[in-house]
This record gives sequence, C-alpha cells and structure tokens, in this order.
Amino acid sequence: MTRSLPPEVTAAQFDRALAAWRATLGDPHVVTSTAGLAVYLDPFAPGEREAFSASAALLPASVEEIRAVLRVANQFRIPLWTVSTGRNFAYGGAAPRLAGSVVLDLQRMNRIIEVNETLAYALVEPGVSYFDLHAHLRAKGYRLWVDPPAAGWGSVVGNTLERGFGYTDYGDHAATQCGMEVVLANGDIVRTGMGAIDTSTAWQLYRPGYGPSFDAMFMQSNYGVVTKLGVWLMPAPSAYLLGEIQFRHEADLEAIVEIVRPLRLDATLGNHAVIEGGLRRAAGLSARAQWYDGPGAMPESAIAAMLDKLNVGRWNLHFALYGTPELIDARYAIIERAFAHVPQARRFAKRYAGDAEPTAGGDRNLAGIPSMAAFRMLDWRGGAGAHVDFAPVCPATGRDALRQYFMVKARAAEYGFDYYGGFTAGVRHLHHIFAAIFDRGDANQVEAAGALLRSLMSDARAAGYGEYRAHLAYMDFAAAQYSFNDGALLRLSETIKDALDPNGILAPGKQGIWPAAWRDRRGYT
Amino acid sequence: MTRSLPPEVTAAQFDRALAAWRATLGDPHVVTSTAGLAVYLDPFAPGEREAFSASAALLPASVEEIRAVLRVANQFRIPLWTVSTGRNFAYGGAAPRLAGSVVLDLQRMNRIIEVNETLAYALVEPGVSYFDLHAHLRAKGYRLWVDPPAAGWGSVVGNTLERGFGYTDYGDHAATQCGMEVVLANGDIVRTGMGAIDTSTAWQLYRPGYGPSFDAMFMQSNYGVVTKLGVWLMPAPSAYLLGEIQFRHEADLEAIVEIVRPLRLDATLGNHAVIEGGLRRAAGLSARAQWYDGPGAMPESAIAAMLDKLNVGRWNLHFALYGTPELIDARYAIIERAFAHVPQARRFAKRYAGDAEPTAGGDRNLAGIPSMAAFRMLDWRGGAGAHVDFAPVCPATGRDALRQYFMVKARAAEYGFDYYGGFTAGVRHLHHIFAAIFDRGDANQVEAAGALLRSLMSDARAAGYGEYRAHLAYMDFAAAQYSFNDGALLRLSETIKDALDPNGILAPGKQGIWPAAWRDRRGYT
Repeated sequence: MTRSLPPEVTAAQFDRALAAWRATLGDPHVVTSTAGLAVYLDPFAPGEREAFSASAALLPASVEEIRAVLRVANQFRIPLWTVSTGRNFAYGGAAPRLAGSVVLDLQRMNRIIEVNETLAYALVEPGVSYFDLHAHLRAKGYRLWVDPPAAGWGSVVGNTLERGFGYTDYGDHAATQCGMEVVLANGDIVRTGMGAIDTSTAWQLYRPGYGPSFDAMFMQSNYGVVTKLGVWLMPAPSAYLLGEIQFRHEADLEAIVEIVRPLRLDATLGNHAVIEGGLRRAAGLSARAQWYDGPGAMPESAIAAMLDKLNVGRWNLHFALYGTPELIDARYAIIERAFAHVPQARRFAKRYAGDAEPTAGGDRNLAGIPSMAAFRMLDWRGGAGAHVDFAPVCPATGRDALRQYFMVKARAAEYGFDYYGGFTAGVRHLHHIFAAIFDRGDANQVEAAGALLRSLMSDARAAGYGEYRAHLAYMDFAAAQYSFNDGALLRLSETIKDALDPNGILAPGKQGIWPAAWRDRRGYT
Repeated sequence: MTRSLPPEVTAAQFDRALAAWRATLGDPHVVTSTAGLAVYLDPFAPGEREAFSASAALLPASVEEIRAVLRVANQFRIPLWTVSTGRNFAYGGAAPRLAGSVVLDLQRMNRIIEVNETLAYALVEPGVSYFDLHAHLRAKGYRLWVDPPAAGWGSVVGNTLERGFGYTDYGDHAATQCGMEVVLANGDIVRTGMGAIDTSTAWQLYRPGYGPSFDAMFMQSNYGVVTKLGVWLMPAPSAYLLGEIQFRHEADLEAIVEIVRPLRLDATLGNHAVIEGGLRRAAGLSARAQWYDGPGAMPESAIAAMLDKLNVGRWNLHFALYGTPELIDARYAIIERAFAHVPQARRFAKRYAGDAEPTAGGDRNLAGIPSMAAFRMLDWRGGAGAHVDFAPVCPATGRDALRQYFMVKARAAEYGFDYYGGFTAGVRHLHHIFAAIFDRGDANQVEAAGALLRSLMSDARAAGYGEYRAHLAYMDFAAAQYSFNDGALLRLSETIKDALDPNGILAPGKQGIWPAAWRDRRGYT
C-alpha cells in the first residue's frame, strides 16, 4: 500500500510537518501507521472506505498543543479534520471528508471541568463521553441527569456540535448547549457568550451574551476547534413514568403525529418522544432471519406475522413524563384521553421513583442512562452489520410524516431494504431517521445502500424536504439542496469560512463548506 | 442649524446619493428635513440628543428597494442604521450610533406574511408591531397568542433581534425565533435554516437547518438587514392563572430567587416570572410626588410608608400558569407549598378561562395582550419623563440577585436616583433591569443619569457581570467588558464584519462592532 499524503503536499513537506508535530505532541500522539489509522476509517462506509482515509492522526492533550498543531498546519497548508471521539457512526465515523486530511483527535482532552448542581450544568472537554459524564454524576452524587443519544459512547461535545438528539426533556442537544471555547484557525482562543467576561460566573447560564451569538455557527461547521462546551443538565425528577403506546396499523402514523403535536406544543409531553417503526422495535427482540430469509425487503405478510408474534406495534410511541407523581398522573390522564380514539392502540406505562432505574434496554435512555442498545440493529440483518442513515427534517403534521414514510419505504424496497426507522418528535418538526442496514462483507449490499441513499436524497429534494445531517459521501449533495437564491446560504458560509480560515486548514468540505483553497474538490460523490 | 452630513462624505456626494435614493424610493420616503428627522432622535437620551443624530432617513417598501439603497450606500460609503419601527426606547430609540448615519427605517414593510395555526407560528416583516400581530390574530380568529414585551408598540422583528423578552412561556424572544430572510451588505438575499430550500414548508419549524446556523449571529449585530422573521406563537391555553406574591422584606429577594429557580428548572413555572421591585409596582398605582418630594432618592421611611399604604410588597412576584384547570391546580399547589415558609408573603391568584381577558393593566401582558402600561413609569418622577436602562445578566442565585440589587441601589442613591427595577426569571439566569428615570427638561438630571449609568457599568464589570444590551452611548463600553483573551470575541465579530461588509455601510458601531472603515470611531463616550 502506498503512503497516504495530504493533498498537494509532498512527502518531504509532510515529513517536516510530522516531525514538528512529534516534537510538540510526542511520538505516540502522532499516528501514521496503517494499523494505527485503521480506527479512523469509516466503519460503516457505504462504499470504498479508502475514499475518506486520513494520512495521519494527531492527539493533542491541551489547547496549547492544538494551537501548535494549527501553526504547523497553516505553514504547510495541511487540512485537518477534527473529531471529539470519532463516534459519528453512520455519518462517517472519524474519517475526514477530504482524503489525505490529518485527523485532529481530541479524545485525550477528556476533563469534566465543572459540574454545578444548583444551576444544573456541566462544562466539558471534547473527549468526555455520555458514559463518562453519567458515571461522574453518579459517582459524585449529583442529582442531575444527562440526556444520552442513541449510543452512549459518543462525545457530549461531538454529539452536540453535530446537533444530535436524545430522549428526555433535554433531547435537543443544540438547544441545551450554553457557552463554548473555540480555537480559531489562526490560533486565537474565543470564549462565546458570557464566557468573554473573564470573571463571569454566567458562561453556562445565559447563551447569547452581548452582540452577535456565534455558538450555533460553530455547529456542523468548520470554523474552529471547540475545546470546551457548556451543557445544561436536567435536574433529577422526583418521579417519572415511561410509557409506550403500540399501534396496529401503518396509517396510524398520521393520527399519532396529529395527536402528539398539540401535546408537545403545550408541553403535556415534554420529552423527545419517539415514534418507532415496527422493524426497529422488533430488532430489539429478535433477528431478521427468524422471520424472513428471502431476497429483497421483508414482505408485508412476514412483517405482520413478526409483529403479531412479538406482540409489538407497527408503530410504537415511546414517551416519558417527569415530575411529581401528581403532575405525572394529571398529564398521563390527558395523554390517555388523547389516544383513546385510535382503534386497537395498546397503552403501557410504568411509574418509577426518581432514583429507580428501569431494567429494559432501549428505554433506559429515557431515564437518562446511556447505553449501547441501539447497536443491536447491527445484528438485525446479520454479517458485518453496518448502516447509513437518511435523516430528513419532517414538519410535525400527520400528512408530512405519512408522505415521508411511504416515500422512503417504497424506495428502500426497490433497492432491497426494509423500512427500518422512526420519527423523533421535536415540537414543530420531527426528526425522521431511516437506517439502511447492510452487511459490509457483501459488496452488493454496500453498493445498494449507497445507491439507495442517493435516491432518497433526490426524492426528498423533489418533495421540498432537507436533511439535518448527512454522511461524508453526501455532505455536498445535502448542502446543494439548500439552494435558495442560487445558493446564497452556502455563499455566506464560505465567505465566513475564508475570512476565518484563509489557508483552508480546518475540515475542508464539512457540511459542504469548502475553503477557497479546496473549493474545486466539491462534488457529489 | 447647519446641515448634517454622513461622516467623511461631502455635501455634493451626499446630494448625489439622496437623488439616487429619491429616484428609487420616491421623494416622500427620503427624509432630510429637521422636522422629519426629529423622530429619529433618541427621545430618552441620557445626554445631548444630537450626539446620535441622523443625516437622513430612508423608508423602503420592499426587499428590492433595500437592495437599491445598499448599492448607493456602497457607492458613496455612507453608513446606514437599520431600525424596524424605531421603538428601542431606553437604548437609543431610532437614533444611530455613528452621528450622521442614514436611518434605514423599515416601518413600511409591515406585512404579516403567514400565520399557521396548526404549527403555531407567524412569518412577519420588520414593520409589524406586537399590537399589529395581536390584532391580526384576533381578527382572523387564530387560537394563538403573541408574547408582548413591556411596550406593545415595538416591532416583533426589532424586539426579537435585540433579544427582548416578555412574560409568558414564550418570553425568551430570541429562543422562539425560527428562520430569517436577510439582505447582506452586498445585496445578496439569504434565507436561513430550512428557508434555504426553495420549496420547504419547514422554514418556521426547525431552526438550524443543515450546516452552521446564522440566525443568532444576526441578532444584536450589524451583519445584514433582516427583512423577514419567523416567530413561534403560543397556542391559546384552555385556561390560565395569573398569580402575584407580595413580599414584605428587602432581603426576601434571596429566598424568592432560590425558590423560583428550581420551579423554573422543572417547568412548574413555565413563564418568564417577574420579581418586581416595590417602586415599580407602586408606579402603576401612584406618582412619586404623593410620597416624597425632597432631594435625592426616596428615603427608606417614605418607601415603607408608600408600600404599606398601597398595600404592595417590597418585592412582587408576577407569574402565570397556562394549561388545563387540573394541571394549573396541581402546579399552583406546588408553588404555594414552595413559598409557604417565607414570612409575611401574601399570595393572590386569579383563574381565567382561556378566552377571558384580565382587566388589570400590567398583567395583561401575561395573558398575551400587548399594552403600553410600562410607559406609566414616565410619569413617576414628573416632568418630561425619560429613562435609561442598566441591564446586567444575573446568575439565578439568591446571592447574586441580592448582590446586584444592593450594588445598584446604593450607586443609584448616590446619584439621587431611586431603585426602580426588577428581575425577570429566565431558567438559569435572571434579566436584571434597572431604569434610571429622569426628567429630560432638567439638565442636571440628564447629566446625573448618564453619570450613574457609567458608574453602574464599572461596578458590574468589577463584579464579573455583563450587560445583555446597552444604550448607544454605552455600546462600546459594554462590549469592552467582554474582554477574554484581549478581546477575542470582538476580534471575531469584526473579522466577520469586514468579510460581510467591506465598505462598512451597515450600522457601524452597533454593539461595539466597528467595520474597518470606521474603527477609529470606537470610544466610550
């Protein structure tokens, strides 16, 4: 295998850069071996893994080391690709958009700098996972919950910056972020919001500060390296209820969304309730081969038989109520009434004291307990399980949800894939997540997954839907959909990019934003 | 009086610019007469009004006309100062930071473009006031509420961009904004978030879109002219309760804040509850001269006598509960219990059906009804009433609130001013608002108000507090407090400013952000 180099950098230049980085970080923290770089390949790549391979990885331990790394990158114009812990699975893992980029891996910066129980927040570095933060809160006895995303090993900073979401009342991670420290491409260290007052105690309390607020601009972007991030935490409730409502009919989706929306709008339902498709629910209880092993997508008859046998719904609404027992009861009564008229809907609810833990797998997330239960999906289809996700934003109307569902289901079936997905309820929108599950060991499946994703994105575009997040391979395509006024939004993004990063060293191509130096690399691969 | 010109522009150049603007906008919409420009002077200036006077005002009627205005401004390098309706009273009104700037007054762009009852939002132009939007919702029978700020004549767009706040569950206006259309200095029209998908129906439903999110960057800034703004509206509740708790002792403030914070954190209290100081409460019922007409701040004895006579508290907590009667009762019971141990606290509560209107003045805001009740404060001290506000962000702890209160009260008394103010409860922070009320007809009072504000800002800085908003005269000073890493945040702001507005035509000096062309004008006046 030939040595991988950063684009438009000679081997001699790269060696000088590596030597400089080794002098700063120490040899063990500059990774160049094929074996060492293997962890930076996309584990779920819907195509050739090497299309997004890194030439090296750097593991700094401090802000000062990051600044030193940036100086060298600027000197040699070497693109860096920042990851917190690199768990961005289904969207590219730790792999860079521009092949040959050097991964800037922040996993060693893993301090929980502050937890404030009274004001219910934490300030963390990028290497802190949801597991870490949860364990820390428990160990110290803080009465605070994290809001775990699907996979608890993810970085709090990384997930928040990618606008991941969870399941509790704090499910909108971007909305519960407060205050950042960012190192810009030129090495300047910025603290946003109230953090810009040296002696302020309000950095994690009031988001905007004074003047323009930049936090949201550093999300899903390549404008800086976020080194500290404030996150609001949910005070542990005195009690909670975990509820599930199972629906028998495919078309019930419309009623579910129409019922959930007003409950979310008036906060009867405060959490990011999940409307989980039958297959995803079944994957927590069984493997696909038990039910079907023919070619193509599972036929309707097999799905119906499976759901009957497993006793789960075609749609399964997972929700949680937190608070005093009286308030929980009052809100649950409203929810019961709201769903009473949906035929054959079956309701389940279990009440817990605030410090009690549910035993079931997936729903532990709703009790603020991180888990890896979501990874059971990898066993669903067998083989070297992988998935790539299609994630369109859906208006919170039954009509839109049904339209997206049938659109995705039909297209997936065409490419031989089951509809494996669901909707997570924001207030006025739903996050629709469809996972194309495939066996990485089967080249046909890998190719089909990639082709399916491209088709789905075209379908969405034609219907006026846009994605909230996309895999490396589709970042440019997703960005291109946001095309109002001949791409004015992307023009703005790239004007700011060039002002902040004139040498184009930070994450070229991330979310479709290319610095001037690499703008010719844009492409819908 | 000599003619006012834009800085560094000759009379001949200005005449050419005005001629070009007249050709585009029509004569009546290019204002240059002294009489016509009088409305653009700061009505509450804590100093010479002329320090922030405009050389002209332009009233475009459309985005295309704005683009034409910008072309001329770029050609002649004439600074513009954008206002929506110019009601930014106490912070400068419609007056520009840089004297001689041309006011770009958007009041003629006053369309309510869309109201969606199902998804509970509106899309409005800058000229739409809270009164306008409220009247429109009522006239059309939409079951949606606005969240009015203190003065209902303010622009929805203007108030939101300045991060104003109100009193209901939708009190954080910046947080309930969703989607913008912005004209950049170069005339490019950007739609943020999902609005960048031409055919999207999700512009007002999901804020971030894909990639970096810029909405918060266009608030309290001078990066563009916002021409459309989406705002989430509160669905009319089935019932509501308006509550007031009156507290007898000055030091009760600490207990109030300590009790309110957990109730806000777990959403028992969903609204932006107001902890109103005794004088502000009294100003709604009487005039100062009834109680005291000696020199200096009202003495404690006069305050105590006044509060006793008027039967109001030293602190008065105003709150609202919205929802079903059952949920309101359950939450009110929690609130009653929480405050039960505060000695001599008196509770009042009145329940309303969702479509009933309270008769009392100030609290109508809590029922989503805009009013001008706040302007009664202008009569408090008599004469040509005016005020300038000091608005530090306060951590939501009793200790911080008490510290800020005593700090401000003592300094105000030193300059002969009463403590006229209160705290509005965010979740983890409080907005502390102190109004220095003065008689514009009394030069000594005008000067003292200005001197007091400067002292308060120095006090705040020394104590680690920062302001969320500031009057024109103190914008630079407020920005300078955000000085971490030698002013890195302002460096970032100005780097972006120069990239987006190389000629420096948009609102130079706003929130302390100066474009390169005018950077030498920075100063703590």
